[in-house]
Amino acid sequence: MNSAELFQNILKKKSFLCVGLDTEPEKLPACLAGDDDPVFEFNRQIIDATHKYTVAYKPNFAFYECQGLKGMASLEKTVRYIKEKHPDIFVIADAKRGDIGNTSKMYAKAVFGEMPYDAVTVAPYMGEDSVAPFLTYPGKWAIVLALTSNKGADDFQYHADNNLRLFESVMLKSQKWGNTDNMMYVVGATRAEMLADVRKIVPDHFLLVPGVGAQGGSLAEVARYGMNSRCGLLVNSSRGIIFADSTENFALTAGKKASEMQAEMATYLGSLLSL
Amino acid sequence: MNSAELFQNILKKKSFLCVGLDTEPEKLPACLAGDDDPVFEFNRQIIDATHKYTVAYKPNFAFYECQGLKGMASLEKTVRYIKEKHPDIFVIADAKRGDIGNTSKMYAKAVFGEMPYDAVTVAPYMGEDSVAPFLTYPGKWAIVLALTSNKGADDFQYHADNNLRLFESVMLKSQKWGNTDNMMYVVGATRAEMLADVRKIVPDHFLLVPGVGAQGGSLAEVARYGMNSRCGLLVNSSRGIIFADSTENFALTAGKKASEMQAEMATYLGSLLSL
Repeated sequence: MNSAELFQNILKKKSFLCVGLDTEPEKLPACLAGDDDPVFEFNRQIIDATHKYTVAYKPNFAFYECQGLKGMASLEKTVRYIKEKHPDIFVIADAKRGDIGNTSKMYAKAVFGEMPYDAVTVAPYMGEDSVAPFLTYPGKWAIVLALTSNKGADDFQYHADNNLRLFESVMLKSQKWGNTDNMMYVVGATRAEMLADVRKIVPDHFLLVPGVGAQGGSLAEVARYGMNSRCGLLVNSSRGIIFADSTENFALTAGKKASEMQAEMATYLGSLLSL
Repeated sequence: MNSAELFQNILKKKSFLCVGLDTEPEKLPACLAGDDDPVFEFNRQIIDATHKYTVAYKPNFAFYECQGLKGMASLEKTVRYIKEKHPDIFVIADAKRGDIGNTSKMYAKAVFGEMPYDAVTVAPYMGEDSVAPFLTYPGKWAIVLALTSNKGADDFQYHADNNLRLFESVMLKSQKWGNTDNMMYVVGATRAEMLADVRKIVPDHFLLVPGVGAQGGSLAEVARYGMNSRCGLLVNSSRGIIFADSTENFALTAGKKASEMQAEMATYLGSLLSL
């Protein structure tokens, strides 16, 4: 999927929502306890209830890997389910991968060769050869960590060389490795005011913005500082949608939460919708 | 395993070798083609042939994930085989993990709760809460990327804030999060002369040193600049050992290569052996 197709999907659904499938096994509703594969069944019902309001899903690998092979099987089933039912929905492998060139090449094969992901999150610490192998699959994306939403972002991401902060250096350098059709950046919603600084460096790239909801970021602020003429945003919400209700109505509530975010997003998209 | 036990194993085997199990499926010897699980069978024979000369194994997750669930099953079988046969060998999950706190907690559970790894490699870009969850398992280790062995290390790791380079800042800050019994650093052998600078900041920590062999680093230089009074080094070799021979003699040759490295290491350990 290229950036024009992603923008078309955003206009069609009046939404730039990404639903994070951080499916923590211990938080599953009790009603799923008897299921053969409760993690997949939870995801399936969440997907069925939210797909109308979202342009992207982002399963977080840690929440599957923590259950070993069984968890990885639930993840694989989930991703194939999304792509079979909703081929136009953008699916992000949130795995924060990145290693020396010959190793990153294998990580790229894992998500783009073996599996039908559209994108993978990548940590930039090891530089160009750790990111480049993810950019060689047509229509696929690397989403590079720039300024993350967590407290620890302060530890190194603001490290400044002659006033150039590390997260800025990451965007300046890495944008030369790819283009606006195969590279995005992670910028946390908890630092929405920084989005103005980010847009000075990457005016045209899509940004994946986590941290709205449970982590405290504001959707209005993100739209205000981060939106560009082709929207340029995918805003993720995980716990705030999928774990909003722990009863047997969990999917219904998740759909309602996603629909509320979509409605708010439609107002921010405003003038873009009438283009 | 704590650092004293690791040092004892080094003295016992006169070796600070770590064998990297970068088991690329396409590079397997033809003689294994008919096996049910050629990746595991390759690893098993490599382990049987090298375990006398090595204190650690380091499977590289990418080379298993690129085969999907089947690859992850081969990896799991490999790690359980090592720990069953050789419980005193240190096993490193080379996975370069790291995410916000609640996610890193799940990654830690995957390698230390579900599986019997002793350590995991961690990318520091996201700061303290991305690393801390790996430090809460007694006897287990986080191995934090400091200065890596690849070309891309130049892109960001030397980014200098008032003469403090990023890799130095990573070591200065992160050593406060853990201690010499639960934290190591990755420092590439391709930058052996930098080990002197690294030792000024972390004199007592163990270092995991990749890049000897195929990547061009020198073992003599690593020992010269990096060794401390408790050795303080695990030097990794992957392709130079496991893929030294593609015939049916692959394991024999791997054992010979490992034994040569062990013999060279014994000379560098020199005075420490007579303590």
